[in-house]
Amino acid sequence: MAFRKIINDPVYGFINIADELIFEFIRHPYYQRLRRIHQMALAHLVYPGAVHTRLHHSLGAYHLMGNAINILRSKGVEISKEEELGAKAAILLHDIGHGPFSHALESVLIKNSHHEEISLLIMERMNKELHGALDQAIAIFTGKTEKHFLHQLVSSQLDVDRMDYLIRDSFFTGVSEGVIGYDRILNMLIVHKNELMVEEKGIQSIEKFLVSRRFMYWQVYLHKTVLCAEKMLVKALQRAASIGAQSQSAMLNTFLHNPGELLIRDRLDDFCQLDDTDITYSIKQWAHHKDKVLSTLCCGLLNRNLLKIRYYSSPIANELLEEKQQLASGYLQINREDASYLVFSGEVRSTTYNPGNEHINILFKDGSVKDISEVDHPLIHQSLLGAVKKFYICYLNMNFHPEAVH
Amino acid sequence: MAFRKIINDPVYGFINIADELIFEFIRHPYYQRLRRIHQMALAHLVYPGAVHTRLHHSLGAYHLMGNAINILRSKGVEISKEEELGAKAAILLHDIGHGPFSHALESVLIKNSHHEEISLLIMERMNKELHGALDQAIAIFTGKTEKHFLHQLVSSQLDVDRMDYLIRDSFFTGVSEGVIGYDRILNMLIVHKNELMVEEKGIQSIEKFLVSRRFMYWQVYLHKTVLCAEKMLVKALQRAASIGAQSQSAMLNTFLHNPGELLIRDRLDDFCQLDDTDITYSIKQWAHHKDKVLSTLCCGLLNRNLLKIRYYSSPIANELLEEKQQLASGYLQINREDASYLVFSGEVRSTTYNPGNEHINILFKDGSVKDISEVDHPLIHQSLLGAVKKFYICYLNMNFHPEAVH
Amino acid sequence: MAFRKIINDPVYGFINIADELIFEFIRHPYYQRLRRIHQMALAHLVYPGAVHTRLHHSLGAYHLMGNAINILRSKGVEISKEEELGAKAAILLHDIGHGPFSHALESVLIKNSHHEEISLLIMERMNKELHGALDQAIAIFTGKTEKHFLHQLVSSQLDVDRMDYLIRDSFFTGVSEGVIGYDRILNMLIVHKNELMVEEKGIQSIEKFLVSRRFMYWQVYLHKTVLCAEKMLVKALQRAASIGAQSQSAMLNTFLHNPGELLIRDRLDDFCQLDDTDITYSIKQWAHHKDKVLSTLCCGLLNRNLLKIRYYSSPIANELLEEKQQLASGYLQINREDASYLVFSGEVRSTTYNPGNEHINILFKDGSVKDISEVDHPLIHQSLLGAVKKFYICYLNMNFHPEAVH
Amino acid sequence: MAFRKIINDPVYGFINIADELIFEFIRHPYYQRLRRIHQMALAHLVYPGAVHTRLHHSLGAYHLMGNAINILRSKGVEISKEEELGAKAAILLHDIGHGPFSHALESVLIKNSHHEEISLLIMERMNKELHGALDQAIAIFTGKTEKHFLHQLVSSQLDVDRMDYLIRDSFFTGVSEGVIGYDRILNMLIVHKNELMVEEKGIQSIEKFLVSRRFMYWQVYLHKTVLCAEKMLVKALQRAASIGAQSQSAMLNTFLHNPGELLIRDRLDDFCQLDDTDITYSIKQWAHHKDKVLSTLCCGLLNRNLLKIRYYSSPIANELLEEKQQLASGYLQINREDASYLVFSGEVRSTTYNPGNEHINILFKDGSVKDISEVDHPLIHQSLLGAVKKFYICYLNMNFHPEAVH
Repeated sequence: MAFRKIINDPVYGFINIADELIFEFIRHPYYQRLRRIHQMALAHLVYPGAVHTRLHHSLGAYHLMGNAINILRSKGVEISKEEELGAKAAILLHDIGHGPFSHALESVLIKNSHHEEISLLIMERMNKELHGALDQAIAIFTGKTEKHFLHQLVSSQLDVDRMDYLIRDSFFTGVSEGVIGYDRILNMLIVHKNELMVEEKGIQSIEKFLVSRRFMYWQVYLHKTVLCAEKMLVKALQRAASIGAQSQSAMLNTFLHNPGELLIRDRLDDFCQLDDTDITYSIKQWAHHKDKVLSTLCCGLLNRNLLKIRYYSSPIANELLEEKQQLASGYLQINREDASYLVFSGEVRSTTYNPGNEHINILFKDGSVKDISEVDHPLIHQSLLGAVKKFYICYLNMNFHPEAVH
Repeated sequence: MAFRKIINDPVYGFINIADELIFEFIRHPYYQRLRRIHQMALAHLVYPGAVHTRLHHSLGAYHLMGNAINILRSKGVEISKEEELGAKAAILLHDIGHGPFSHALESVLIKNSHHEEISLLIMERMNKELHGALDQAIAIFTGKTEKHFLHQLVSSQLDVDRMDYLIRDSFFTGVSEGVIGYDRILNMLIVHKNELMVEEKGIQSIEKFLVSRRFMYWQVYLHKTVLCAEKMLVKALQRAASIGAQSQSAMLNTFLHNPGELLIRDRLDDFCQLDDTDITYSIKQWAHHKDKVLSTLCCGLLNRNLLKIRYYSSPIANELLEEKQQLASGYLQINREDASYLVFSGEVRSTTYNPGNEHINILFKDGSVKDISEVDHPLIHQSLLGAVKKFYICYLNMNFHPEAVH
Repeated sequence: MAFRKIINDPVYGFINIADELIFEFIRHPYYQRLRRIHQMALAHLVYPGAVHTRLHHSLGAYHLMGNAINILRSKGVEISKEEELGAKAAILLHDIGHGPFSHALESVLIKNSHHEEISLLIMERMNKELHGALDQAIAIFTGKTEKHFLHQLVSSQLDVDRMDYLIRDSFFTGVSEGVIGYDRILNMLIVHKNELMVEEKGIQSIEKFLVSRRFMYWQVYLHKTVLCAEKMLVKALQRAASIGAQSQSAMLNTFLHNPGELLIRDRLDDFCQLDDTDITYSIKQWAHHKDKVLSTLCCGLLNRNLLKIRYYSSPIANELLEEKQQLASGYLQINREDASYLVFSGEVRSTTYNPGNEHINILFKDGSVKDISEVDHPLIHQSLLGAVKKFYICYLNMNFHPEAVH
Repeated sequence: MAFRKIINDPVYGFINIADELIFEFIRHPYYQRLRRIHQMALAHLVYPGAVHTRLHHSLGAYHLMGNAINILRSKGVEISKEEELGAKAAILLHDIGHGPFSHALESVLIKNSHHEEISLLIMERMNKELHGALDQAIAIFTGKTEKHFLHQLVSSQLDVDRMDYLIRDSFFTGVSEGVIGYDRILNMLIVHKNELMVEEKGIQSIEKFLVSRRFMYWQVYLHKTVLCAEKMLVKALQRAASIGAQSQSAMLNTFLHNPGELLIRDRLDDFCQLDDTDITYSIKQWAHHKDKVLSTLCCGLLNRNLLKIRYYSSPIANELLEEKQQLASGYLQINREDASYLVFSGEVRSTTYNPGNEHINILFKDGSVKDISEVDHPLIHQSLLGAVKKFYICYLNMNFHPEAVH
């Protein structure tokens, strides 16, 4: 009897693993580490259901890849068994390089490497261990495969990665407005001149997909309370680094206290032992730290007693920032520089669709191809192009009451 | 404008918090700690979606309590504003005494206290802090209220606690067979002579509820891989205690290394700082411990490289146990006593309904009352009464391949 | 590009039609007629969502057949392209012989033929038209194929027909307790010695499936208000036949006024023009009929002003029946025989599982096979075997108020 | 015990009826007639699940009204028991004036009256019967109530009518992209200066709501196959009227053959006996009519053998229309005028939001009020305002093959 494992998934029902090799990747400790990394960092402080993991997301993306390949094949696109396996492995492992708290801590712990770069390093190491079993997957992941559309399924505006995370994040947060018709989109995919495209009758679904993504950005990913908590986490780690506060976690210390000179390539083993636990544990430890700034931040994160945050449509005036810093400085009896860990401003932006560097191409019945932004359709045409920018200020609440739950 | 917070919940849509006092309980650090305790311990090793928390579950039970009270009121049952608030607070806080990994580690860390006892201790402490705001809640929680049915909504065969956990666990595992018609059951509740009962036309829903619960027991809670992982966790902690292995977590050490003499009442502060993080962090640390038994268990848990487990319908023969222990002892070069941490047997049971000590009473249209097990209805009548018992053996896999995913 | 149609289905998301021949069957007027036959007859009088059609159900069963075949193939079962097409066509057309209001009017309009017999007649006629395209489907439908398990997928205790109707009826009624884990059951199917069986680890899912079915029987299919309405429909047609009331529908007259001598084989053309519309239209017409009995029944059906109904666990006493008939006779000024159309009794039964004439076989890991009723498992073992019987009486409500909605 | 009925609804779970008066309206034959009117006319020819009824929709809108009122009250808005009942009755009965096939046949059967006008006539008649029980409901329905926001809940851009139909139509078609976060929108409603508004933080939900509605328009309501079928139905009735074809339904004849002089006010009784059945039955009858045009249209509708349809972005050229008419005229041996029933063109449009005559007002935290179209938010601001217009041509398929399923 053929090899076959099934995994329950509340989103898709069942996920089938029909290749022993895929199962071997899943069993690998590097992959199992993803169980200990939240997909949505601290979003669960606002959406208590959003505690799903990177492992769960990448299993989901793997599932969609299988569906996408079946659909393309049924439309006459040739994909060999080996290419199928490669594409599935590539998407399964695409996030294996994520560090603790996913995007929230990116660039804090590992200053000079993007998570996709680290994913590649880890895949290469696994490939050595497994005697080249990942050759095809790596070619697809890095875009060096001949069949460019397979790379696009892994990484592009239409990849199964963002389909899964939108569906899954919408599911676990309970934000029903983020629901996308992934099944319809998958069914509308087509390959034309080696490029992944969307059939003409899928235009509206793509439109809907872009709108849902934008909705999720502002309602969830950049929800002000979520943003505030994640910025506090960043500030806590920066403060720990700046005052040389040691974590009990040796791994964390490695990355926290000498990120400058550190080449991730040389510290991959250490990196692969780092996960959310190291951070959360250190936060618990530092909640009792004698440095007032560090303990205030960590205590706040632990007990969901967050800084106040406000969004503005224009940049935060220096005067406002300074005023709030002065207040904090007086309140906690700390100097102004220290206060800047508790009172700070910044900018966030979401780009729904940027035709400059990303493409969703529509294949029309007459054989012509157009970028979605050039389709004669008012919604996309006029409004989704521009990035939306917002400016925020986080500051200490004088009577230090926590933010509203929602 | 009245006080009002809404929280997104993927299970019920929205949870409304309409009382400032309730919101104050939610904000309390003791309650926020529940964010860091998995509702289903290690079930996520089999069901990757099952990473929801005790906080989420108790918010859900709180939501159902509100519904139940509205329904009872609409049937003419009198419940004062104060009683409503008490019942809601009682269910919100009913699990506040859970330690790390909920049931999995109960009786390992705190030998002589049940989690409900600890919940009460914590509620009493909060009550002092809050100048008696929990008086009514405590009376309802402990069954000292006049309106016994309110206590039954918090703790009985028909309480909203088990309704929420069945729905929620079914939802997050993706095991659709566990779905119960909670809405119908709530609508069938009635109070008769101060006791919570079910209207006659709800008999089949109750039946279905009991069958779903039994299904969840064997498919999920006592799934052999889940059981195996949780037993490994217990063994790891017992091993650490027995060899005096220190965790970096001082809190964990407190409970691990002198549980005998420890009175939870005297260590409540420490207990309230303990959560899943302390355990997982220690597991990560001990995976490198020089004690082979401890590191084998911790490594296995970390990488989901579990012991083998088999279920039997009769007790495990000593010969089998000894044979497996001998093999492990030889394989790892350890003595037989040490091997007993890696090769062990035990018994599990699920009682679907035991009319001896629990009651679901049906109120018939003619005014008579019968226990569900005495209703003239074959399914319940003949089969659900007996406990189902199974016997398991866990043992070391010689080539140490992990268990199947499912 | 290959042939490919997709149909939106709220239950499964999308149904794919990948064979032109299947699409040709769907387009056939005989199949399109099923759009005008309610899947659940008059159940919508209690469950307003239950207005789905036979066409929708058979498309759903077709979808499950595709899944089942894929799963069996992945387990090494050989099924040729031709057999696949045959099995899909057989399930698609299995209900094509249903008359108006499905089961509710069976044996009223067509006295001596079961709907499956008529389905076969129609399939044979279509087969002639289509030059043998249904040869394989007919062999599978009638059990004359060598691969007996294909017939079992179409018609047996484990067929995809009842899987779809349970899921779909549960979905459209909103009775969540009827939900079955069809995906899990399909994944547990296996073929052993040419017979369809269930893997050992699927025992509990089967159990759950049988319990859900039983629940649906009593909560929905035999819900007393549904039963009452359907019996009223039968009585209305019997009354019309008995007094020679003409419908404007010539087709209906054909079947109503000479069912005795009628051989369905000779009237297949007429039959294929009959659907729910003919009946409902006639009911509307007869609501104004001068015969008090007929108009009372039809008016009641039209305005959901139903007879009263009560269930009993023992047969209805003649005295009660006579008393109620006398009351009705006096109330409407009709004779006792006429009153028997408005006051009548009967018996209904549901058999959850009868090991005498149906089988669900479990294939154990050790290669042995057992009937589910012989498995060492209390629930099935002791309780599901017996049929549950209930007795009902329907009678005229003197102040003629309608039944409660629920 | 208080009066209480619950109705299962697959969309919301349960709908509660807590007022005896509401239940009396539901039981009324005028309301029960809505069981026989499809909510979505012929959309089920493309979306087989879309067979739900006007009765089901108006029960759903009634349910949302209850929720909306509870939410507004919890925000301090005063609504008396009587006003609550009035608002609930108004929404329950808002569609009671719909004729067969809802919007599809509007203006064909009843030329000079909109369905809302007829709803009012029927409500007034019921009000007389029920001794003024609908006084308040009628005041709210017609906007004559003091509390204007209650009227807006029944009829405005934010009314519960469109919320329910979007949710329900999305649910039954299985078009998941139409899902709206109705629960969030309801929770964001507020009353300011007697007007219904949306809180500032609900802006994105409203945006999402408008986009979903637009999606549903083009994907479902104006799906080209649906449009084609509904236009064929219109043409069939117009043809029948023009050649004086009699239906067996006397009611239908009344409206079909003298619509000009007919005042609906004088024919309300007849109108209330008309439903989808009369039309479908007549279509079945006319499928055998000797007039080729009528029988072609009716046959096509019956067997889903539809005309071909194409959408264009500019008006259909007369030349194209004439060419296709000529072909049809030759093919069926009919004259050019007759051919115009089988070959015709037209225009459809959807306006997502027109700030000229409709308003969704946002109440900002600072107390200011802005129309959603003036909010500083690119999506709404730039793109949703304009109507989208399309032009269609329907024509006879020479080899008369039916349209694709999807």
